[in-house]
Amino acid sequence: MSEPKPFTVLIQPKVAEAERVVKEAVSKHLALIVVGRCWVHYLGRAKSKLEPGERILMIKEDGSILVHRSVGYEPVNWQPPGCIFHTRSKGDVLEVHAIRQKPAESVQVYFDTVYLVASLDLLDAGEFSLYASEEDMHKAILFKPSILEEGFKPISYEKKVEPGFVDVYGVDKVGKLVVVEVKRKMATKEAALQLAKYIDAIKAKADRKVRGILVAPSMGKDVQKTLETLGLEFKQVDPRKCAEILQRAETKKLSEFFEET
Amino acid sequence: MSEPKPFTVLIQPKVAEAERVVKEAVSKHLALIVVGRCWVHYLGRAKSKLEPGERILMIKEDGSILVHRSVGYEPVNWQPPGCIFHTRSKGDVLEVHAIRQKPAESVQVYFDTVYLVASLDLLDAGEFSLYASEEDMHKAILFKPSILEEGFKPISYEKKVEPGFVDVYGVDKVGKLVVVEVKRKMATKEAALQLAKYIDAIKAKADRKVRGILVAPSMGKDVQKTLETLGLEFKQVDPRKCAEILQRAETKKLSEFFEET
Repeated sequence: MSEPKPFTVLIQPKVAEAERVVKEAVSKHLALIVVGRCWVHYLGRAKSKLEPGERILMIKEDGSILVHRSVGYEPVNWQPPGCIFHTRSKGDVLEVHAIRQKPAESVQVYFDTVYLVASLDLLDAGEFSLYASEEDMHKAILFKPSILEEGFKPISYEKKVEPGFVDVYGVDKVGKLVVVEVKRKMATKEAALQLAKYIDAIKAKADRKVRGILVAPSMGKDVQKTLETLGLEFKQVDPRKCAEILQRAETKKLSEFFEET
Repeated sequence: MSEPKPFTVLIQPKVAEAERVVKEAVSKHLALIVVGRCWVHYLGRAKSKLEPGERILMIKEDGSILVHRSVGYEPVNWQPPGCIFHTRSKGDVLEVHAIRQKPAESVQVYFDTVYLVASLDLLDAGEFSLYASEEDMHKAILFKPSILEEGFKPISYEKKVEPGFVDVYGVDKVGKLVVVEVKRKMATKEAALQLAKYIDAIKAKADRKVRGILVAPSMGKDVQKTLETLGLEFKQVDPRKCAEILQRAETKKLSEFFEET
C-alpha cells in the first residue's frame, strides 16, 4: 500500500550527515525526527538543564520543537511555532538551537550520538472535529460553572426528581436554587415545559424560590415567549465549547506534570 | 560515534510487518514511532474525530501515546501513561487502540499507509533541573501572587525607590501597601535591613502604613529577631517552585491551543 514518499531516513549516521539532514529539513520546513543521546539547555522564562540521555527530538514545519524522553507524555523541553534554528557540528557533537525572540528564549540540544534522523514531508489537511454529548455538557458545567453564569455553584447532576432527572442543579451567587436543563440541539417548547415540571416538583417539596435555566446552543421560534410565561431563563452554550472545556480539563492535569518534575 | 543499538527501523513496511513491530514494542515497553497516513477517533471525556492525513504517532515506554501533526507543538490526540494497547491489521489497515480505564477513554489510530516504523530502546537516566534567578522569582510572584499570600495584588516590580530598587510592591487583601524583597538564597540580616530602608523611604513620602515582606527559600540564624524588631515579615518561597510557575505560564498558553481548534 506504500507509495514513494519524499523523505530521508538515516540510521546511525555520522554527525556531519545528520547535520546535513537537519539543516535541509529546517530550511525546507519539513518535519524532522532525531533520535539519539543528547543533553539540553533551556534559557528563557526560567533556566533548565537536562543531563545526557537517549531521547526523541521533533521539529515541525512551523518551527516548533519538542524533546521527548522515553516516558511521560509531556515533552521535557519544547518551544512553540516560529523558532529560528541554528544547526552545526562541533567536533563530534551535533548542536541544534531553537531560538524565539518574544519572549527571548532558547532550547539548545546537543547530540553526541545519533541513532536515527528522519526528515518527512507530511501531507495533512484532515479536519479535527470535537463533539460533546448532553452528558459532556453537564460535565463541562460542573467543571467550569462560569459558562452558565458567574458565581454559579453546582450541587449535583443527573439527580432524580420526579417526573425524571434534573440535568444539573446548584445555587447562584445570591444563594438561590438553580435547576438547569441542558439540550445538545436547539431548545424547544417541550424542553421548556419539561424544565417547568421539574421546578414545580422541587417547589412543591422545598417551598423555596427556584430559578430554571434552559441551556442549549440555540433557541427555537417562539420559545422565548414560552420561557417568559413560565418564568424561565435561557443560556446559550455551544456543545463544542463544552468539549473544549473537557479537553482542557485533561490538559490542566497535563500541566500538573511540571509540579512533579 | 554511533554504537550498535537494540532498535528496529522499517521504511515503507507492509501493514503486517508494521503490526509485528508495534506489537513487539508495546509488549517489551519500548518507545515507538510510526509515521504514516492515519485517521483517529477519540472517545472519552468528549468525542473527537481526526480525518485522514500524514502524521507521527509516538508510544512511550510507560504506555502514553501522542499523535502529532506536521504543525503545532501540541499533540492533536494523546493519552497519559498507563494505556492498554490493542494492535491489529484488518485488511490493509493497521489499527492501534490505546485504552484507559479511569476515566474510560480510548484513542483509536488507523493507518492505511505506513512510511516509517521505529521501535527504540532508549536509555535515559539524565536529571532535569530547573533554576530560577531572583528576577524569575519576581515574575513568578507577578504571575501568581498567591504564592506570596492570598489576596495580594502586585502593582509594579523593580521600581526605583532611593536607595535602590524595590523588587515587587503591591497591596494586600485589605488594601495595605506591601513591599517585597526577594532573595534567591537564605535571607540574611542585611536583606532585612535593606527592606527596612525601602519601607522608611516609602513611608517618608507616602505617609501611609506599609508592610514589608522578605521572600527567600530559607532564613538565616537570628534573622527572625531582626525582622521582628524592624516590624517585617518573612515568607518562605522556593526558587524552584517559581521556575515551575513560569514553566506552567507557558503550558497555560499551550492549553489555549484548544480554544482555537
